[in-house]
Amino acid sequence: MLTCIPFSFIENDGNIKDILLAAWITGASGAILLLNSRRGISNELNKRDGYLIVVLGWLSMSLFGTLPYLITGAIPNFTDAFFETLAGYSTTGASILTDIEAVDKSILFWRSLTQWIGGMGIIVLTVAVLPILGVGGMQLFVAEAPGISPDKLQPRIKETAKRLWYIYLGLTVTETLALWTSGMTFFDAINHGLTTMATGGFSTHNDSIAAFSSPLIQYIIIFFMFLAGTNFTMAYFGLHGQFLKVLKNEEFRFYLLFTLLVSLVVGFVIYGLGNETMEKSFRDGAFQVVSIITTTGYVSHDYTAWTPFVTVLFFILMFVGASAGSTAGGVKIVRHILLIRNSILELKRQVHPSAIIPVRFNGKTVSQEIIYNILAFIMIYILIFALGSIAMAMMGVDFMTAVGSVATSLGNIGPGIGSVGPVDNFAHLPDGGKWLLTFLMLLGRLELFTVLILFTPYFWRKN
Amino acid sequence: MLTCIPFSFIENDGNIKDILLAAWITGASGAILLLNSRRGISNELNKRDGYLIVVLGWLSMSLFGTLPYLITGAIPNFTDAFFETLAGYSTTGASILTDIEAVDKSILFWRSLTQWIGGMGIIVLTVAVLPILGVGGMQLFVAEAPGISPDKLQPRIKETAKRLWYIYLGLTVTETLALWTSGMTFFDAINHGLTTMATGGFSTHNDSIAAFSSPLIQYIIIFFMFLAGTNFTMAYFGLHGQFLKVLKNEEFRFYLLFTLLVSLVVGFVIYGLGNETMEKSFRDGAFQVVSIITTTGYVSHDYTAWTPFVTVLFFILMFVGASAGSTAGGVKIVRHILLIRNSILELKRQVHPSAIIPVRFNGKTVSQEIIYNILAFIMIYILIFALGSIAMAMMGVDFMTAVGSVATSLGNIGPGIGSVGPVDNFAHLPDGGKWLLTFLMLLGRLELFTVLILFTPYFWRKN
Repeated sequence: MLTCIPFSFIENDGNIKDILLAAWITGASGAILLLNSRRGISNELNKRDGYLIVVLGWLSMSLFGTLPYLITGAIPNFTDAFFETLAGYSTTGASILTDIEAVDKSILFWRSLTQWIGGMGIIVLTVAVLPILGVGGMQLFVAEAPGISPDKLQPRIKETAKRLWYIYLGLTVTETLALWTSGMTFFDAINHGLTTMATGGFSTHNDSIAAFSSPLIQYIIIFFMFLAGTNFTMAYFGLHGQFLKVLKNEEFRFYLLFTLLVSLVVGFVIYGLGNETMEKSFRDGAFQVVSIITTTGYVSHDYTAWTPFVTVLFFILMFVGASAGSTAGGVKIVRHILLIRNSILELKRQVHPSAIIPVRFNGKTVSQEIIYNILAFIMIYILIFALGSIAMAMMGVDFMTAVGSVATSLGNIGPGIGSVGPVDNFAHLPDGGKWLLTFLMLLGRLELFTVLILFTPYFWRKN
Repeated sequence: MLTCIPFSFIENDGNIKDILLAAWITGASGAILLLNSRRGISNELNKRDGYLIVVLGWLSMSLFGTLPYLITGAIPNFTDAFFETLAGYSTTGASILTDIEAVDKSILFWRSLTQWIGGMGIIVLTVAVLPILGVGGMQLFVAEAPGISPDKLQPRIKETAKRLWYIYLGLTVTETLALWTSGMTFFDAINHGLTTMATGGFSTHNDSIAAFSSPLIQYIIIFFMFLAGTNFTMAYFGLHGQFLKVLKNEEFRFYLLFTLLVSLVVGFVIYGLGNETMEKSFRDGAFQVVSIITTTGYVSHDYTAWTPFVTVLFFILMFVGASAGSTAGGVKIVRHILLIRNSILELKRQVHPSAIIPVRFNGKTVSQEIIYNILAFIMIYILIFALGSIAMAMMGVDFMTAVGSVATSLGNIGPGIGSVGPVDNFAHLPDGGKWLLTFLMLLGRLELFTVLILFTPYFWRKN
């Protein structure tokens, strides 16, 4: 929070005292908790501690994260402030702000920063926590990460997390500089740097990226969104010159080819509408496709205006998600690869019922437990989507808004379809709907199981 | 086809010669195939023969089933005629007819009959063929059927199929008489008898069941739709007085309670709108809920006019389906029970990773292979729904029509949402869309795997 003060100072927006108060409350609460923690009793954390720490950590961060909004009065309503903060920490990017540009810069910086911090949290969650908890096959996705053993927390995992953080920081700085030198103001550049690498999607402009007409700026953002949706381990390999290892990774290959293919298709559709030049058609197509697949959620053009086909396509894309081990949310490509492979192999198993036919990924056999776990993950994902849509509709929103808002929140994307489309915001939803979507953002971000397990008796029962 | 002739004779609609021609072509083709089949070589059918026989059987029935439409000129266009016929044999009930009441009664009877024959086909498919092919866990659902061993085709299966056919026939006759004595014309009564028990949903009236204002008629149809969506084995037990066995069946209990609960919810919503009396509100609610869950597809009221909540709810209901072992299509309730149980248990497995925690159904442990198979079934179902919706939208239809038409075709229901809603028809869709939906009806009806397996190399490769 203190990093927002320079912006408040330069702009002289009178928020300095408010931000200091927010920071003091947060810091003091932390200090009280720290002093009262019984450190001496046990340093050993078990799996159950892990689930609780992750969920409560995200929730308490979001609770304290509302303070700058509430105290400065930028977002006076608690429901809205909590929605905006969790949309930040979960890197979703859905917003209740109706006029972003009217908000003080120091607060906008805080808004962008919540996403960046959320992204850092996801990196450590992916490499260090989820594999141990065995959530949704995450032990598999990071198996190639340098220095990671999926069995238990090792000292080297701390090293790995640090290394990936450096990459995250380095890419953020690089993008910021690239955007700045391409014509953005420094403030816009740093904010978009922070929210791109987190695949967050908060912008400092009401029109999101459509506010920047420079093609160069849009290409830079496309490139960094794509990077942010790549497994950070791949970025690590890339920086160490191990390009062959990157190109051999099946998830990366599929991610690259799928994004290219869908971008081209959408580009052709836009060009066919005849309102844009060929270059702009394919740029807009690529921008929106990459933005949705990586669950960033920036908007360079209203994608719901490009024929019903594109609307349906983008709605389905909300269920894709980018690579595991990136900051992207959603189902993630590796799970789709494994499930589609398994489904095809299930047909083979029908023909040869006595043969044991395992799923393979990156040249290795994937254990049946992991496939089972991923299948359950997807089932719960879809079940929550269905129940969430019904609940949203029960609060009076229309069909497309209901399914769109739930899909985009659960997938940590940002814009949806219907009245929460790319050029709309979430301000008009009923309070109950906002709370539901907030919960779905948290659920999606923490890979469902981490949160849901707290609602089962198995978790609370003494062994 | 010959059974249509009495109606042609009574109405003197001039179709007798045309129907005779259609019947002669069908009969002659059958005779030629029969004479040319090399019966002597092998009487043993293997699994692969099973897949081919089922798919080609359904397709060739539908191909010849178009003849009465085409020759009489009731539906002159082949695409439309094939759509209508497969919507019959697959018991879907989607229609391209814009004015049903203008069609000759003999042809309407043929239309209803295709659904009833389709329903008979499904019964034998469920009890005798699919369990042996091991499709989508069907071996499990009929495990309780009298005289069935899921391992191989036994003489007793023929007996079982016959017994269930008698029940099917008996219920059809009973419903016809009930409807007739309640004020329907004999023609309407027999047609609705045929299409209720098949969970088909073809009506002889443009307004479907809304054409009959008598509450008694609507209650009778609700009751028989519910019966048609019940596992026929349960009906068998019920007729033999073994009510305890029926009430102990977990799928039946869930089916009953779920239908009651959702009917009540929708009834309250309708009553809350203030346009209908309490009795009519709950009757309409129950009618449409039972009609969609059982995948019948009759319409007593435009359900998309009852708030967006009900629209979303009915859209989700299209993915439920009624009981396995009934004539209903869709995913089916037993699969949902097993998957939801498995998903909850997966959370338990997270807490106790070394414990083996099987899913139980009707007091018995369900093998992991079956759960695996069902999970793959659902994955493929959803994947096909997503790809189908994209393909429909690609042909220019809007979002709600795209997702609605695909969901209703794949689930063998009939009406969808959007421009193929309960008071619309499928005539205005582009030809490509009609063919796609026709394929989806077949796919859904034959439990996906049976059809899809023919598209894999595993099927065609020599062992």
